[in-house]
Amino acid sequence: MSDSGRPIGVAILGLGNVGSEVARIIESSASDLAARIGAPLAIRGIGVRRVAADRGVPVDLLTDDIDALVARDDVDIVVELMGPVEPARRGILGALNAGKSVVTANKALLAQAAGELTEAAEKARVDLYFEAAVAGAIPVIRPLTQSLAGDSVIRVSGIVNGTTNYILSAMDNTGAGYDTALAEAGELGYAEADPTADVEGYDAAAKAAILASIAFHTRVSADDVYREGITKISADDFDSARALQCTIKLLSICERLTDNEGHQRVSARVYPALVPLTHPLASVNGAFNAVFVEAEAAGELMFYGQGAGGAPTASAVLGDLVMAARNRVQGGRGPRSSRYAQLPIAPIGLIPTRYYVRMRVADKPGVLATVATEFAKREVSIATVRQEGEVDETGARLVVLTHKATDAALSETVAALADLDVVLGVASVIRLEGTQE
Amino acid sequence: MSDSGRPIGVAILGLGNVGSEVARIIESSASDLAARIGAPLAIRGIGVRRVAADRGVPVDLLTDDIDALVARDDVDIVVELMGPVEPARRGILGALNAGKSVVTANKALLAQAAGELTEAAEKARVDLYFEAAVAGAIPVIRPLTQSLAGDSVIRVSGIVNGTTNYILSAMDNTGAGYDTALAEAGELGYAEADPTADVEGYDAAAKAAILASIAFHTRVSADDVYREGITKISADDFDSARALQCTIKLLSICERLTDNEGHQRVSARVYPALVPLTHPLASVNGAFNAVFVEAEAAGELMFYGQGAGGAPTASAVLGDLVMAARNRVQGGRGPRSSRYAQLPIAPIGLIPTRYYVRMRVADKPGVLATVATEFAKREVSIATVRQEGEVDETGARLVVLTHKATDAALSETVAALADLDVVLGVASVIRLEGTQE
Repeated sequence: MSDSGRPIGVAILGLGNVGSEVARIIESSASDLAARIGAPLAIRGIGVRRVAADRGVPVDLLTDDIDALVARDDVDIVVELMGPVEPARRGILGALNAGKSVVTANKALLAQAAGELTEAAEKARVDLYFEAAVAGAIPVIRPLTQSLAGDSVIRVSGIVNGTTNYILSAMDNTGAGYDTALAEAGELGYAEADPTADVEGYDAAAKAAILASIAFHTRVSADDVYREGITKISADDFDSARALQCTIKLLSICERLTDNEGHQRVSARVYPALVPLTHPLASVNGAFNAVFVEAEAAGELMFYGQGAGGAPTASAVLGDLVMAARNRVQGGRGPRSSRYAQLPIAPIGLIPTRYYVRMRVADKPGVLATVATEFAKREVSIATVRQEGEVDETGARLVVLTHKATDAALSETVAALADLDVVLGVASVIRLEGTQE
Repeated sequence: MSDSGRPIGVAILGLGNVGSEVARIIESSASDLAARIGAPLAIRGIGVRRVAADRGVPVDLLTDDIDALVARDDVDIVVELMGPVEPARRGILGALNAGKSVVTANKALLAQAAGELTEAAEKARVDLYFEAAVAGAIPVIRPLTQSLAGDSVIRVSGIVNGTTNYILSAMDNTGAGYDTALAEAGELGYAEADPTADVEGYDAAAKAAILASIAFHTRVSADDVYREGITKISADDFDSARALQCTIKLLSICERLTDNEGHQRVSARVYPALVPLTHPLASVNGAFNAVFVEAEAAGELMFYGQGAGGAPTASAVLGDLVMAARNRVQGGRGPRSSRYAQLPIAPIGLIPTRYYVRMRVADKPGVLATVATEFAKREVSIATVRQEGEVDETGARLVVLTHKATDAALSETVAALADLDVVLGVASVIRLEGTQE
């Protein structure tokens, strides 16, 4: 393979952690990248809000005119690393409409406007790659769209938000409460000043939408994703989890459900869940990410690694950039995710999972029978009941673990329990994932 | 995307577990595959040694004339699943020379003749895909060649042989000796009647050659891979491993080494090694496979799943088949692994690793000093020394764990130890991998 071809022109939008690292590696690994591509990469310009001499790259590469940059004749590929939805959307659409291939790490934009972007890429017959948008350096998009292209994915369960995984790991390891663990994560730089997007599950929901779309060949947007955050998880929940040989993880779950009549639906949902310690996801700790995939022929697969950070994210961006550049040199385009299946989205009420319900009950004879009756009335089958801790004047702590039940049946049961005189309060309701049953 | 295009003709060579499963899924998932490809797949023929009506597929698809099958005008893609080196090599070369894209799972052939095959594919400008050749259903080839195309791989450490991993897991879990565990693996179908290729590391070495080739853009053949099998691993070794908070795994390691003058070499090697229980590879048990990758920007990644079996291997084959078929429909070819770097192979003597050395020594004063002197003379630094078990008339058991030392220095040390009067015997020498130092 010759590296003497015409240079492939690259425009980078954004010069934060990831953008700086991408620019650095393009320079420091220039000869390796040229050999792999068959032509050298040439950075034509970097789009920034603030053009200044102190930004670590030659100032004459910088421009604040993104519209002009992405349309330059000598730009073949645009790498979008600006972050928020706008002006990234406008920059990407400008690039695609001008016939440039695009590499982006922008999960929020993809979860909102993937349809618009992929249509523009189709129309222009160019590549749109976004491996870095989910789980940083971990190859997830490419395995799902290519390696599993001949298989049928059943379920994808991901730990795809490093902030919440750091907080939950800390709560499990130290016994700390949520507020303490969040404060520590903030001090160490693992949580932002406003952690809402992470701790309320918005970031994980955007990634769930992307994963569900490519796994099930169906357009799924962030609004289709059921979402619960981790702010209500307590040290008591972790005590119960440990007693059940479990830990608690914020999971992004995408699942293909088939009803009794053979109709298929897609469920995409984000919530904290009990995970058995024997499950491979249970040992994914701290800021690491992992995506666990179940497919009909492949069985169980897991992809594990660093889900965030400048260098790991840059690795994924550069992989996409090299692929897009090779396609420019050799002609042709990479495989695209398809939406042919267009399965309907299943509402959360229909989703069957197992549940852990912790409540405070009066210390009286017959309480267990009364409680069990409310579950039985709604056909929620109980797997185990245990009383935890000491009985005192505030009653006893009762923990119920159910078999699979729909969210609707469980919600009704919880509402009915709360109305019982003998139930002093339902303290916690958490789903249990990753068991065989 | 339309699925009304001209059918893509497929020839399958071999109708064992994997071939049967591939043929089955092509039929049962026909409409999904057509939608993903943009054209239906049509099986034109299946090459077998024995044409008969009892083979589970329409008998008129079967042929024993492989040369004619791969050259048929209506065949676009040949899927080779015959197994041994010949006649697979001849079938694949015939297919490539006739302008057909090829998908193969044949690790032995690739480890021996990858150069010849890739040159034929280049010349014919067709795809040659082999995801299923390493680690079954686990996407490994595609992540290394595509996702990490912009990164620099430092090391790949794989558990890529299910038979040996099953045996070693059983020895660890039950305390059984090697012969007992091997016999059990044979009874359960995890080991073949002649287990040599697995237990002596030949299969793992073939996969190491493939992994090293693609990770380091260098041609590495099975003959370049240093190899030790697991037949000498004993229950005593596992006792020591447990005392060191380790387990023992057969690892396929591919590493890029840089010497003091900045020259780079590639090491590819297979041997059983102690692995700390805290390392992600330690918990890969039974017939599961995993590949742990360290790259400069991406950091640590791990890919985990089922490494063998008809359905998982078929999943990887079908992923390749769909990609090759899409390329036929849309024009263009997939990215190929390159060999531009052509790094020299490092001999095993130069490879620095840590070592565990277990020996039987006389129960006398001064023994430790005498033993330590032999290590020091060859600049092998000792990390810990411990005496294990009871001292009796056969002496004492001494376990030495070293810091990193070259294989050459360690081998000389072991030879010198064996010559000492106070050393009654060196029972075991095993490398230690997966620690930071």
